[in-house]
Amino acid sequence: MKNQNLNQNAIGVFDSGLGGLTAVKELNRILPQENIIFFGDTARVPYGTRSRKTILRYTREDIAILRQHPVKMIIAACGTVSSALGTDSPVEEEMPFTGVVYPAARTACRITKNRHIGVIGTPATIRSGGYVEALHAIDPEITVTAMACPLLVHLVEYGYTNRDNPITRLAAEEYLMPIKNAGADTLIMGCTHYPIIRDIIADIMGQDVQLISAGEEAAKFARDCLAQRGLLTDRAEPGHNIYYVSDSEESFRENAKHFLPDAAHGQVFSIHI
Amino acid sequence: MKNQNLNQNAIGVFDSGLGGLTAVKELNRILPQENIIFFGDTARVPYGTRSRKTILRYTREDIAILRQHPVKMIIAACGTVSSALGTDSPVEEEMPFTGVVYPAARTACRITKNRHIGVIGTPATIRSGGYVEALHAIDPEITVTAMACPLLVHLVEYGYTNRDNPITRLAAEEYLMPIKNAGADTLIMGCTHYPIIRDIIADIMGQDVQLISAGEEAAKFARDCLAQRGLLTDRAEPGHNIYYVSDSEESFRENAKHFLPDAAHGQVFSIHI
Repeated sequence: MKNQNLNQNAIGVFDSGLGGLTAVKELNRILPQENIIFFGDTARVPYGTRSRKTILRYTREDIAILRQHPVKMIIAACGTVSSALGTDSPVEEEMPFTGVVYPAARTACRITKNRHIGVIGTPATIRSGGYVEALHAIDPEITVTAMACPLLVHLVEYGYTNRDNPITRLAAEEYLMPIKNAGADTLIMGCTHYPIIRDIIADIMGQDVQLISAGEEAAKFARDCLAQRGLLTDRAEPGHNIYYVSDSEESFRENAKHFLPDAAHGQVFSIHI
Repeated sequence: MKNQNLNQNAIGVFDSGLGGLTAVKELNRILPQENIIFFGDTARVPYGTRSRKTILRYTREDIAILRQHPVKMIIAACGTVSSALGTDSPVEEEMPFTGVVYPAARTACRITKNRHIGVIGTPATIRSGGYVEALHAIDPEITVTAMACPLLVHLVEYGYTNRDNPITRLAAEEYLMPIKNAGADTLIMGCTHYPIIRDIIADIMGQDVQLISAGEEAAKFARDCLAQRGLLTDRAEPGHNIYYVSDSEESFRENAKHFLPDAAHGQVFSIHI
């Protein structure tokens, strides 16, 4: 009976900003009956240029906010947070938890043919070495080419996202050409913001390179994890998303539409952190 | 005697990040005997894309940090904070205070010949209308062309600051050409980060347009204000700068050199906020 109740709890998802909505979008697609509680720390975004100590402090605070609600799993839908955590879980063992690093690394190792994988992320993500470590834990002989892309999060957050935007294209070329030239056949988009400019990234990398969205992989990993523990809901009706942000509701409604069109009309609450 | 003691107090300067060091640099130049206490909220930078409510909350917290030290004046060396405050002072009347908006507006009105002034700033600064209001309070017949430049703070913070950097040049052209074409003869660099790319801005605006650094003007205004109140120090030996930041000391040392070369070797303390 305890599990029966737990089943009805929401899946808690947090991110430094709104990139994590790419994971929520995938959760809504593959688990439409589940309730989702999302927290975006929009008053302190971005995390990717901060020190590890500050990122871990923010992470603890973000998780505390989600845990004020009945949640049955927590997803850190943020490449920077996931990399800072490494293999440490920030919650007790009974609470299912995943970041985006391991799920993305697992999929990348499965689909690469030449065993050369590219990784793009924020400066903090790349500096942490989290993706490289996860890839090598799965297959020590994988070649990894990793590149920090400090500007991309901002270009996405400011809506420089058209396929032909010259600034985003120029910045993305600078970051991606070394990975393409090095010969990777698979690219992990290691920050949950990047899928919004997937078409620009795909144009530069070419059709022979497979792109992996870290947020989508985390959503699929969470589904498997909940299924394994018997924690998926048995409700028939569709679930709801509730959004919490640390900056204003208005800025959420304005920006969320780039990530998840439905979010702009959803239930949004602004909280102090 | 009370004033005698106050005179020896430091000048407190704060910014959302490190742009405010352009004001500190000018203070060191024009008031070399003064002690400076600087706080940069590097764990929460940038403010310029946040809501006004969040910016004002952060401002109160930043001022509280400076006031833990004996300061005789407070300078908000941040265009975003100054614009959010408008004509309100965030401290009691006895404490001299200035932002960057009024000092820059006053100088711009004095030097413009065609009475057409351009303003660039963060989205929050431009949205607030603070500069336009200040310019019109001084001279209601000034024409103002204002433009939000969301990317420039990041380009500066990430070191995309070489005169020939193609991304910064492209972004700056997109923001500045409408101001140039509108015919402004004076441009207020309304965010304290922008002087770092002054040469790129000058190349685009051309030699007939005069550039005003908001941080430098605030420093000069502070000098006048302290002189008027008899609060300048009478020490003969050079003053010291002490730096506080909310992110790590290391990231301060790495980034501060772009703004103020000496800062990288100064006394730096990291504090929680």
